[in-house]
Amino acid sequence: MRIEILCTGDEILTGKTINTNYSHIAQRLGEAGLTAYWGTTVGDDRDSLLAAFRQAAARADAVIVNGGLGPTVDDLSQEVAAAAAGVELVLNAGWLARMEEYYGRRGRVMPATNRKQAMLPAGANMIDNPIGTACGFSLTIGRARFYFTPGVPREMRRMLDEQLIPSLLALGGVQGVTRLKRFHSFGIGESRADQVLAGIEALAPGSEVKLGFQAHYPQLETKLMARGTNAADLERSLAPIEAELRRRLGNFIVAEDDRTLEGVILAALRAQSGTLAIAETFTGGSIASRLASLDGAELLFRRGVVARDPAQLCAAVGLDTDAVASGVSGALAAKVAAALRSNSGASHGLAVLVNLDEGADRLEFGGTICIGIADAKASVVRQARMLGGRDWVRRGATELGLDCLRRHLLGLPVDEQIDFEKR
Amino acid sequence: MRIEILCTGDEILTGKTINTNYSHIAQRLGEAGLTAYWGTTVGDDRDSLLAAFRQAAARADAVIVNGGLGPTVDDLSQEVAAAAAGVELVLNAGWLARMEEYYGRRGRVMPATNRKQAMLPAGANMIDNPIGTACGFSLTIGRARFYFTPGVPREMRRMLDEQLIPSLLALGGVQGVTRLKRFHSFGIGESRADQVLAGIEALAPGSEVKLGFQAHYPQLETKLMARGTNAADLERSLAPIEAELRRRLGNFIVAEDDRTLEGVILAALRAQSGTLAIAETFTGGSIASRLASLDGAELLFRRGVVARDPAQLCAAVGLDTDAVASGVSGALAAKVAAALRSNSGASHGLAVLVNLDEGADRLEFGGTICIGIADAKASVVRQARMLGGRDWVRRGATELGLDCLRRHLLGLPVDEQIDFEKR
Repeated sequence: MRIEILCTGDEILTGKTINTNYSHIAQRLGEAGLTAYWGTTVGDDRDSLLAAFRQAAARADAVIVNGGLGPTVDDLSQEVAAAAAGVELVLNAGWLARMEEYYGRRGRVMPATNRKQAMLPAGANMIDNPIGTACGFSLTIGRARFYFTPGVPREMRRMLDEQLIPSLLALGGVQGVTRLKRFHSFGIGESRADQVLAGIEALAPGSEVKLGFQAHYPQLETKLMARGTNAADLERSLAPIEAELRRRLGNFIVAEDDRTLEGVILAALRAQSGTLAIAETFTGGSIASRLASLDGAELLFRRGVVARDPAQLCAAVGLDTDAVASGVSGALAAKVAAALRSNSGASHGLAVLVNLDEGADRLEFGGTICIGIADAKASVVRQARMLGGRDWVRRGATELGLDCLRRHLLGLPVDEQIDFEKR
Repeated sequence: MRIEILCTGDEILTGKTINTNYSHIAQRLGEAGLTAYWGTTVGDDRDSLLAAFRQAAARADAVIVNGGLGPTVDDLSQEVAAAAAGVELVLNAGWLARMEEYYGRRGRVMPATNRKQAMLPAGANMIDNPIGTACGFSLTIGRARFYFTPGVPREMRRMLDEQLIPSLLALGGVQGVTRLKRFHSFGIGESRADQVLAGIEALAPGSEVKLGFQAHYPQLETKLMARGTNAADLERSLAPIEAELRRRLGNFIVAEDDRTLEGVILAALRAQSGTLAIAETFTGGSIASRLASLDGAELLFRRGVVARDPAQLCAAVGLDTDAVASGVSGALAAKVAAALRSNSGASHGLAVLVNLDEGADRLEFGGTICIGIADAKASVVRQARMLGGRDWVRRGATELGLDCLRRHLLGLPVDEQIDFEKR
């Protein structure tokens, strides 16, 4: 089935807003086993919209139109859809009542301009929007089924998942149920993950499971998109692949599905009735800021200390500045972590020191990352050299520090080599 | 002139990569006084590419094609461009020599597959790529002039600015020179800025100056896009508008052009031979991380301290925890800033404490932000209540803290009301 995504609006066309709605829609289609095959972007302009609708109607089986359903004069989707289909606009009394009730609940009277949002092309099917005043609708134009969605991301996303994708699957004659399983890893690059996981889909012969990757440096997301006749069938075909994927990516998996590295760290601390203090240098507060502002962190995150100068960092955690005499090292990081721990009263201390190369960014520019972790029982050290620009090193050091802490809290080895380090 | 932006590649089409190249190209066109009027996205597929090229050739005057110039088998732009123009591919010996030299300088032999990157449609004009192996080219297909650019963002961006935009301006018969002047502000929302600056373009009658906005919460970017017959003419028409814009946005302007709020703070500190220490709570290190990792900050940023619990924060800066007995307030923030200053030896102390509402995000959820600044001469306090979700409050508090510091360092009032605060 050929699906086109047609994005409308001057803000998108002129690049004022980055078109994340497009990528979200295309991704979700892919995860459901459908494929986007064409993308079009046009502005809030009658001629362009009409031409775009007509072209899409001629080449696609289904078209997802995004935007142009608002109450203002430059929102033209209903009007141009009616023109393209050769029908009139008619009032959808049900939606008008819903909007009036929506405003009523907020103690306001609906502005007259909103009435426009209940005018749909004759013959269109209204698509519910439970969280906004722009309803969607579907309509056949030419040979294609069109689905009109609001431009507000959270309204579009909910409509897409709950209504459009099931409808598109039915339209395409696709049977059964789908599931998306996600693994977040740190330390493995996309090309190595691709090699390591080669052939994994074949572990469930006869079932439809597709492997995909999305790199968000420093993390990599690995996805399994599965289709089955029912939930039990899906479970059966995914289980051996998930197990094998966990085995092959091993300790590099930091979290699954909606969980995050920072969430896993907080959960592990909570399970041990632990608390945390963090000392950092070049990362400048990036490590603390990943954890400290999370909901629930107020009970677990005790203190963060930042200094660019290692001697200043030592002073801030109550260490004699002589400690830094022999330079930044894993040993110094361990000392800082231990001092910070006793100083702050936290059960766990994490210190991430970075020895950044001098001078401007260049080929072979990088930094040496020295990590120390201290708790009541142990003192752990990890050291790694990473190459790349300042920002690359900063982000890598932040992630490596957090990941070492996760590994330590979960009893995993902290020194497995990662793809981003130079040995 | 009708300009189409045609983005190619499966990663873009499937939403795996967010299409920031599109928005960058469209924005830069707008800043140069040109307009994108259509956007198309297709995958690495011969039929789709050929159809997309033919349609664009029929409706546009100029087409910017992005992607598909690499050395691999799924890079099809040259081949399909030649097919669409009805010409053969021919070797560009000049570019082949450049690539061989490029590899030679790195002590490597050019892989045979790269030869493909020097095969251009007959009659095409090569467009230089000074930083990569994918040269661009321009070619007429149908009624439109096509410009092919590499998908690698930094290569595309340089080619766009240095070669495509001047060529498009010439093609469109646009005379003269353009300039983009940018102002970054904090504390004014887009709609208020639009009101405040209404009619400002008219201050230079007869000249072409266009006003535009781009909101990146919490900051707002205000742009003046100007065109003149020559640089002196441009300067003359822009000067009164710039002056008036500075007068109207006043102290809310935090930086101009490529400068940033954090860069302005570091420069002001440097000018006063000052150093800085920062204490924060709910912002969790976000304030420190904006400054501490910048180039040059190693001499200016002395210390950052983070704690979610105000009593813990007091302990960390050497304050008696009794100080927190009467709760989080501007007075406490001032005390923390003063204690931190003497404790760290920095000339300036900034404390940003947030009293976040209890419970889950909801309508009317928010936080009270208490800011204290201490230096050798003064103790400054600023307090503001902001509504919004946790992340919105965190980002607002981070920016307000940094902006108060900027204002204090520059001798400006720190208590001008901002649009994001509830009074």
